[in-house]
Amino acid sequence: MGLKAKPKLESWSPIIIEAVHPEVDDGRYPIKREVGDRLVVSADIFKEGHDVLTAVLRYRTIKEATWHEAVMSHVDNDRWSGHFDLKENTRYLYTIGAFTNTFESWRQEVTKKSQAHERIESELLEGRAWVEGAMKRATGQDKARLNDILKRWRPSDSQEAQLALALNEELAQLVECHQERTAWTVYDRELKVVVDRVRARYGAWYEIFPRSQGTIPGKGSTFQECEQRLPAIKAMGFEVLYLTPIHPIGRTNRKGKNNSLTATPTDPGSPYAIGNEQGGHDAVEPSLGTIEDFDRFEQAVRAQGMELAMDFAINCSPDHPYVKEHPEWFVHRPDGTIKYAENPPKKYQDIYNVDFYCKDWLGLWNEMKRVILFWADHGVKIFRVDNPHTKPVAFWEWVIREVQDRHPDAIFLSEAFTRPKMMKVLAKAGFTQSYTYFTWRNFKQELTDYLIELSRSEMKEYFRPNFFTNTPDILPEILQQGGRPAFKFRLVLAATLSPSYGIYSGYELCENRALPGKEEYLDSEKYEITVWDWNRPGHIVDYVTLLNRIRQENPALHELENLEFYESSNDQVLFYGKSTVDKKNSVLVAVNLSPFQSQETHLRIPIEGLGIKPDETYQLHNVISDQRDLMIGDSYMLRLDPQVEPAAIFVVRRWTHREQEFDYFF
Amino acid sequence: MGLKAKPKLESWSPIIIEAVHPEVDDGRYPIKREVGDRLVVSADIFKEGHDVLTAVLRYRTIKEATWHEAVMSHVDNDRWSGHFDLKENTRYLYTIGAFTNTFESWRQEVTKKSQAHERIESELLEGRAWVEGAMKRATGQDKARLNDILKRWRPSDSQEAQLALALNEELAQLVECHQERTAWTVYDRELKVVVDRVRARYGAWYEIFPRSQGTIPGKGSTFQECEQRLPAIKAMGFEVLYLTPIHPIGRTNRKGKNNSLTATPTDPGSPYAIGNEQGGHDAVEPSLGTIEDFDRFEQAVRAQGMELAMDFAINCSPDHPYVKEHPEWFVHRPDGTIKYAENPPKKYQDIYNVDFYCKDWLGLWNEMKRVILFWADHGVKIFRVDNPHTKPVAFWEWVIREVQDRHPDAIFLSEAFTRPKMMKVLAKAGFTQSYTYFTWRNFKQELTDYLIELSRSEMKEYFRPNFFTNTPDILPEILQQGGRPAFKFRLVLAATLSPSYGIYSGYELCENRALPGKEEYLDSEKYEITVWDWNRPGHIVDYVTLLNRIRQENPALHELENLEFYESSNDQVLFYGKSTVDKKNSVLVAVNLSPFQSQETHLRIPIEGLGIKPDETYQLHNVISDQRDLMIGDSYMLRLDPQVEPAAIFVVRRWTHREQEFDYFF
Repeated sequence: MGLKAKPKLESWSPIIIEAVHPEVDDGRYPIKREVGDRLVVSADIFKEGHDVLTAVLRYRTIKEATWHEAVMSHVDNDRWSGHFDLKENTRYLYTIGAFTNTFESWRQEVTKKSQAHERIESELLEGRAWVEGAMKRATGQDKARLNDILKRWRPSDSQEAQLALALNEELAQLVECHQERTAWTVYDRELKVVVDRVRARYGAWYEIFPRSQGTIPGKGSTFQECEQRLPAIKAMGFEVLYLTPIHPIGRTNRKGKNNSLTATPTDPGSPYAIGNEQGGHDAVEPSLGTIEDFDRFEQAVRAQGMELAMDFAINCSPDHPYVKEHPEWFVHRPDGTIKYAENPPKKYQDIYNVDFYCKDWLGLWNEMKRVILFWADHGVKIFRVDNPHTKPVAFWEWVIREVQDRHPDAIFLSEAFTRPKMMKVLAKAGFTQSYTYFTWRNFKQELTDYLIELSRSEMKEYFRPNFFTNTPDILPEILQQGGRPAFKFRLVLAATLSPSYGIYSGYELCENRALPGKEEYLDSEKYEITVWDWNRPGHIVDYVTLLNRIRQENPALHELENLEFYESSNDQVLFYGKSTVDKKNSVLVAVNLSPFQSQETHLRIPIEGLGIKPDETYQLHNVISDQRDLMIGDSYMLRLDPQVEPAAIFVVRRWTHREQEFDYFF
Repeated sequence: MGLKAKPKLESWSPIIIEAVHPEVDDGRYPIKREVGDRLVVSADIFKEGHDVLTAVLRYRTIKEATWHEAVMSHVDNDRWSGHFDLKENTRYLYTIGAFTNTFESWRQEVTKKSQAHERIESELLEGRAWVEGAMKRATGQDKARLNDILKRWRPSDSQEAQLALALNEELAQLVECHQERTAWTVYDRELKVVVDRVRARYGAWYEIFPRSQGTIPGKGSTFQECEQRLPAIKAMGFEVLYLTPIHPIGRTNRKGKNNSLTATPTDPGSPYAIGNEQGGHDAVEPSLGTIEDFDRFEQAVRAQGMELAMDFAINCSPDHPYVKEHPEWFVHRPDGTIKYAENPPKKYQDIYNVDFYCKDWLGLWNEMKRVILFWADHGVKIFRVDNPHTKPVAFWEWVIREVQDRHPDAIFLSEAFTRPKMMKVLAKAGFTQSYTYFTWRNFKQELTDYLIELSRSEMKEYFRPNFFTNTPDILPEILQQGGRPAFKFRLVLAATLSPSYGIYSGYELCENRALPGKEEYLDSEKYEITVWDWNRPGHIVDYVTLLNRIRQENPALHELENLEFYESSNDQVLFYGKSTVDKKNSVLVAVNLSPFQSQETHLRIPIEGLGIKPDETYQLHNVISDQRDLMIGDSYMLRLDPQVEPAAIFVVRRWTHREQEFDYFF
């Protein structure tokens, strides 16, 4: 403890400040919030003996040099709580300080003693000395006021007269302001909160292969043709348009249709095999257009009120400029060969991985940063990062921080489908949002368990889920087997359970042709140019549109932590809901998880939690069917036929208008 | 992250090492163990990609300069575990390191590829290079052996021949030994474990006022007379003899009988009002004897196979030498008065508190340390610390560490009866043992809840309970109302639930005369000299003796973490048990918690946990009544009459001897 060396009071911490919440891994990683949130911080704060303590929550943005302070309140059992508002899209620091409120301690002591009719001459002299101390430190009006009180506080006066003066509330406040912070202790960590813009939490994503937005078979679409698709995407209600990689594609070991090892001369290759003689990660595939075409497209997306998300995949084709310009960034075997990428049993013969551990690692890392900043300068502020779990976590922690220091509005979505602890640490280390296991959670208990972990465990402090119903790599079994009903209810689940969700285009067409025995698409767009009929029979475009409108109209669906699961008597029917804090918006959702059978269920409406009295009449408005029910009590029978409608979304509407609201009532 | 400054691989940590267990407040405080324990440490350890990792648990005593390493094993889901043995009564440090086992990763890769009949010429060259690297780092025999293998490993040989050589297990071990620790990462904290002697966990305490061990009314006993009592105390089976303060007692504001404010000239005063003109904390009250008498007494206790515990109470009477010699250690009011101690509504007019925050705080702290070391030099290694929660936690953390650096066998018992978080932080900061809320936990659910918290929560890492049935300050209601049956079953609870427990003398006499409406003794020894009849009618000396013998004979009762609660059909009957790890000793305890009524209960014997087969015949030996039952199955009916015997302690005995054990069986 080094106490012998420095005989100063400040060399030890008299007040215990511990169990601070929220805090991720003891402050090793920041927590996450969004602009407009209020951050509530609590802690155990206590000290030996019986002194009264004052605790303050200290906070500042990383741009500010000095702390703001918010006084904390004692809750119970040495637990204290305080809060401050997060107004800015930046990083904040917060910590806690505490000190002995000497004068208040004294006030309580003399109050007790005087009530017990004890003599307190000595105590009064002591108290007067505290006031004198505060007066000496005070300035201006406060000093004058304290001086005035001291003049009237004569030690020769009666105990009662002195006490009346001493226990005056104004005096208490004046002294509290100017007293020395005895036993001043500051929590030994400065905690961080990344305050993102709201889009980090809430948004509907739509993923496309930009080359497959055209109409001529075999011919890839350009950005200009993509622009034609924007009104339809906007009309469906999406907020983020996510493009798979747009860079030049390698030629060596180029993959053919259905991931075959030999490509024909007309095969376009996987856009994830990035780079050829026309450029690498900062170039645009010429068949899509030029960088200027990209800029125009980005503007067009913005003009529609949407925002572009770009794929960031650190894969290099053997033809990538880096391979020649920076051979030191790749692992060469003794015979000079470079190993292609593998994720056993998957092989990516068309891709080399860079070596984050190479001697020039910093050069490589800085180049990756430069690429991201390049696209940020071209208006891209959302990056969907491919396979981050195969690159060092420390790299992500560094690069995301570096980019957000310049672009605090940058959003990074982690496409890690891997073991749970790696998924979590990527989020802790900085990823704004994360892909999840939602794609493989189909049944009532497993959905409930997973959502409770996401919304209630420590994960809620740092892990923001983005529920994708499908991806170019994953066509889930439930969609393959369940068909259109499954496409509908999986959409409802994604769109209402998670504030951020996304579909990979084709979902609205119920596309579900799979490679036999796999969760992969047949004739995947990854390896060929597809021409879609966006109005083909059986599509659910109207359903997608309705879901996104329901999301937009109901702020309760913009949050995750407010998720509650409710009682449904049928094990195939999941029943849950969300409310805004003020309860002005409450949404209840019942979903038949079986795409095969009609299910009847008895729902228990959580009227108590919604603030509805047992005898109050309220309305359940099913905003999918637009059917309305008048209700009294908590019992509701529901039948969901997957062929007709697998889900019900109820907006709870109360009858709040009363005759008293009219001016002429009175 | 400072990466730009130092372009070195070591400036970032490639491997994630987190969620290390055990760890108290992220390593802020040490965990506690005892000599002979095995410390099992687990952690989440993982890295991007698919490399095989090696993890090592690193440990050393504070006296050692270099780390020992124990290889950890992967358990499941990125969780790893390792262990080492704690052989010495000292502090150990431990942490975790991990690196990429490059050669093993390579072995797995080529094994898979060769099984898939792939060409692996490049891979073989790569593997040979790893072996060469290891050879260069190796010395002696290992170098020769590696050289030999390399000579036989000819790149021109067939793939199969090379592979047979490459996948050899001996080679794997040689390379693992000498390969570079790629991606070497060390956990960012060094954790501490205080390894105490076993007495820190297990022991039966007996508390006495040394002046009240005599036979002549009104005359205080001396250490010599105390010595006469030792055989009886030893015969009862106690291991620690704890003395209330033995120092000169103040005269100013000396308390009279029953804590009255005025003492008569013959009143001896409270031994907690320490210090007068004859000395302070390092002096002996002359009526007890001299320091040499104390030393002789200490030797006599030791000769009985017991050990002395001393009271350390930082209270100064107004007559303490410190008051004159170090007025700067006390808070003086403006009129020069010093405030006496208070713990509202209790007042201690005969005591001044020192000011741990005074300008010469380090002088004061060092003096406290000197006092403890003074007594340690006189053979005292157990200190029961009075009211530690009214002194700064930082002081205890410092002084306990300072003392244990010189006397690692020193044990400090925290006498804090206060709010839960303060109780806990005192233990975290260094107290070896702690008083508990046991005294106020009487009924089944509250006893179960409290013991589960002590034995299962994080508290088990740092908080060692010492269950006192009573203290000079606390005569619990249950003893006042429940009389002799309560004295018996509270003893059983204390002695079997907690490996450390204690009684304040008089308990064995069922002394329970209280101040009306209070949990305090009438005619308390604190304020007068008492002459006890140690054989008075109604005593339970034999019962105490039996309990301590049962404790000594059953090692299962020497542990806390092994406590399990079992099913008893009656809410007034608590049923629990403890087993040694090897299950060779198993003890089951059933206690009727009502001192007023007989209770019948149906006990469910945990045969599965005890490793007893459903059809196996075993013996329940009630070591209180010495009754034996032959049992098959898990069902046992029990009746406990508090007037006869409120508790049953069963030792589970199995029939393990079989004919096969005889030599002539075969």
